[in-house]
Amino acid sequence: MAISNFAEELLARIGPGGVRVGADVDPRHRHDWTVEMPPDGAPLAVVYPRNAEEVSAVLRLCQAHRRPVVVQGGLTGLAGGATPVDGCVVLSMERMRAIEEVDTDAGTMTVQAGVTLQTVQEAADAAGLLFPLDLGARGSCLIGGNLSTNAGGNRVLRYGMMRDLVLGLEVVLADGTVVTSLNKMLKNNAGYDLKHLFIGTEGTLGVVTRAVLRLHPKPRSVCTALCAVADYDAVLRLLRLARERLGGTLSAFEVMWPEVYRRAEAALGRPAPLPHGHGAYVLVEAMGSDQAPDQERFEAILQRSFEDGIVADAVLAQSGEQTAAFWTIRDTCGEFGRIIAPAVGFDVSIPVGRIGEFVTLCQDRLAARWPDAESVYFGHVADGNIHIGVKVAEDPLPVHAIDVVVYEAVQEFHGSVSAEHGIGVLKKEFLPYSVSPEAIALMRTVKAALDPNGILNPGKVVDPVTA
Amino acid sequence: MAISNFAEELLARIGPGGVRVGADVDPRHRHDWTVEMPPDGAPLAVVYPRNAEEVSAVLRLCQAHRRPVVVQGGLTGLAGGATPVDGCVVLSMERMRAIEEVDTDAGTMTVQAGVTLQTVQEAADAAGLLFPLDLGARGSCLIGGNLSTNAGGNRVLRYGMMRDLVLGLEVVLADGTVVTSLNKMLKNNAGYDLKHLFIGTEGTLGVVTRAVLRLHPKPRSVCTALCAVADYDAVLRLLRLARERLGGTLSAFEVMWPEVYRRAEAALGRPAPLPHGHGAYVLVEAMGSDQAPDQERFEAILQRSFEDGIVADAVLAQSGEQTAAFWTIRDTCGEFGRIIAPAVGFDVSIPVGRIGEFVTLCQDRLAARWPDAESVYFGHVADGNIHIGVKVAEDPLPVHAIDVVVYEAVQEFHGSVSAEHGIGVLKKEFLPYSVSPEAIALMRTVKAALDPNGILNPGKVVDPVTA
Repeated sequence: MAISNFAEELLARIGPGGVRVGADVDPRHRHDWTVEMPPDGAPLAVVYPRNAEEVSAVLRLCQAHRRPVVVQGGLTGLAGGATPVDGCVVLSMERMRAIEEVDTDAGTMTVQAGVTLQTVQEAADAAGLLFPLDLGARGSCLIGGNLSTNAGGNRVLRYGMMRDLVLGLEVVLADGTVVTSLNKMLKNNAGYDLKHLFIGTEGTLGVVTRAVLRLHPKPRSVCTALCAVADYDAVLRLLRLARERLGGTLSAFEVMWPEVYRRAEAALGRPAPLPHGHGAYVLVEAMGSDQAPDQERFEAILQRSFEDGIVADAVLAQSGEQTAAFWTIRDTCGEFGRIIAPAVGFDVSIPVGRIGEFVTLCQDRLAARWPDAESVYFGHVADGNIHIGVKVAEDPLPVHAIDVVVYEAVQEFHGSVSAEHGIGVLKKEFLPYSVSPEAIALMRTVKAALDPNGILNPGKVVDPVTA
Repeated sequence: MAISNFAEELLARIGPGGVRVGADVDPRHRHDWTVEMPPDGAPLAVVYPRNAEEVSAVLRLCQAHRRPVVVQGGLTGLAGGATPVDGCVVLSMERMRAIEEVDTDAGTMTVQAGVTLQTVQEAADAAGLLFPLDLGARGSCLIGGNLSTNAGGNRVLRYGMMRDLVLGLEVVLADGTVVTSLNKMLKNNAGYDLKHLFIGTEGTLGVVTRAVLRLHPKPRSVCTALCAVADYDAVLRLLRLARERLGGTLSAFEVMWPEVYRRAEAALGRPAPLPHGHGAYVLVEAMGSDQAPDQERFEAILQRSFEDGIVADAVLAQSGEQTAAFWTIRDTCGEFGRIIAPAVGFDVSIPVGRIGEFVTLCQDRLAARWPDAESVYFGHVADGNIHIGVKVAEDPLPVHAIDVVVYEAVQEFHGSVSAEHGIGVLKKEFLPYSVSPEAIALMRTVKAALDPNGILNPGKVVDPVTA
């Protein structure tokens, strides 16, 4: 079948309102937010389906013609996972924006894959409940993308990643089969739990069209403090104390190393809540159920941390404004464009107890290779997740060489080359640094079983099994 | 290769201390705790491996000879998932009892698959942390069995099921390949999250040999009340109030229908904490961080529930003894042998808001078919999980006919035929009552990809793809 016939078939199945072909394809579908832009291709067409049946029609056609399919959500990914390949059909989920049901008894929300994260958060809030996933792209990213990348963000410590917030899925397989498992129960052991094949697999095993999300009760109190400590050993002692005394209400434990703290303050152009000169800064947050007694206890724990010589200086937020100020300095650390551009960014994880050593090792190795290297470190330390920015004077930036230095260190510490952003195309080369050859082989076995002709998001995460 | 040669090969690979053959096989390996005993077979041999390498040696040999392999843990399963088939090799994990590491910084424990749940709980407690999975068989069941059945139990509402408490696994595949992914980080998106292929798949896709478990901070307060309400609508109103006011500390919400409450009291032979005549009894528990203020708030919520006309009568536990008394009546509901024997037992889940209707429908349909039918209902309602016991006068008990009545109702309510016990052999026939044909086909695709010759736990969960 010639390309023009294929396009006509697409139009016949979806209708002209839902398909753009060739030169009519909006160029925004060519790339996502990934800075280190992977090489992209020109899509043959972009389809905007309205439901699983239309997705199925597209996949059946593409399967028959072995035409690659790349699913796109809000295009806010940071690993190039939604980058089109030449001649592919892009499935853009942006017309599938229905919130189908909020069940306050079950504590669930059933949505189409194209709803934005923020819309879900707001709908949960309006129903008196909480959808706890939260990340900077909330207004643009779509739930389907959160699912396919297993998104993380700010509240993982307390509520888990996206995977932990999904009860049921509707998925379209590579051959167009629609698998509907819109489970609403917390407990369900009826056979294999198939949803995990599609969460965090970046559109390489199927296309998610609907999801049942798990809602949580709203926390009724928030206590926040910014603490300064001498070194990473004190960070660990503070974490131990917080876990022990806060009894499971600990919801954030964000650590900033001194250099990133200094740069974030400079970028903000006003004094940070605590002075410089300390070994690390920790934003501690607890979400509980009663503000007054919770705040009292939180204060007592801080007091204890002083007495035990763990914390050198601290401020406890007394208002929403102060809380916001603490989070602003933390969030500014993540804006590499303002504090360390042009830099290579990393999103890795390391077992919590060894993150201090890991940071020192990275600093040493970077300095040994590039005496003018600058690097910044901060992260959701209780989750093991560290974000790193590295800049050297070399022009152009030796991205690959820097990658190798950092990922080799990750490998030595049994860490992960991707804590929350996924693998996409950008990190594929480095997957073996944290996953064994046997595990990669098993991923390829699964890929071959679910997508034997390799039409789904080709080139991402793992390569197909070669004959 | 003749059977005797095969056995010799086994002995050569594992050593005589780790293998029992033919008549020397201990008969306890023939069945688990399942009451409705599925037909079992005679194992050719039982192997007691000490590590993944020995498991791998056994699997390579069995794969070469297409010999079935059945993995056994503590043999406490309730769906016949560990029942041997004729001529199989049983892999008993009971010698793999090492706790390899407790990492208090990462909040993890690395164990071999043969450690009992209770040993894990105790080791976590000794380290000042909590391993929250808890169920009646804690002293006998092994972590490997908890993993392969995705065990649930009493604290799912707050901490999730076994799946949510595992960070990494070591698994041996059907061909003997050892896949080691002993991840210790909460955040890790490095490729497909393969562990979910082995959690809750009842030994049909691989053999788990080691696991990294997630430990939680210990809760520092427990508040417990037993409440009497008029009907299921009041149950739902109480649940809404508890979720809203307890801000995520709600840890149990156990509902007993009047008949099961009455029988549990009779079995215990002493007056229950609340009188009869109410429409339902609810055990509410919250785990927080500070006993005195938490108890005060809990009491205020109960007070509010009276004022709003939700709760008709209630007792708030003022001591550990009273708390235990509340749980004793709840736990006695589950002892069908004492309260409704001989009965057919069910472990199903139903969307929370519709459980009341579901119970009424079951009662009506059972009465229509067997006018002398007796049935009891209780469960972890906030999880959607209901346990049912059904007895009729017919002798022998018409198990299959009763199954059909109940599972048809489950199907109509989009529930699950197995909330926490798994499918095994016992519920295989009923899997289509809560899983679509497309989903079952996908399970079979996965099974064929990971175990193409069908040697792993044959006959359990799903049938292999037929040529």
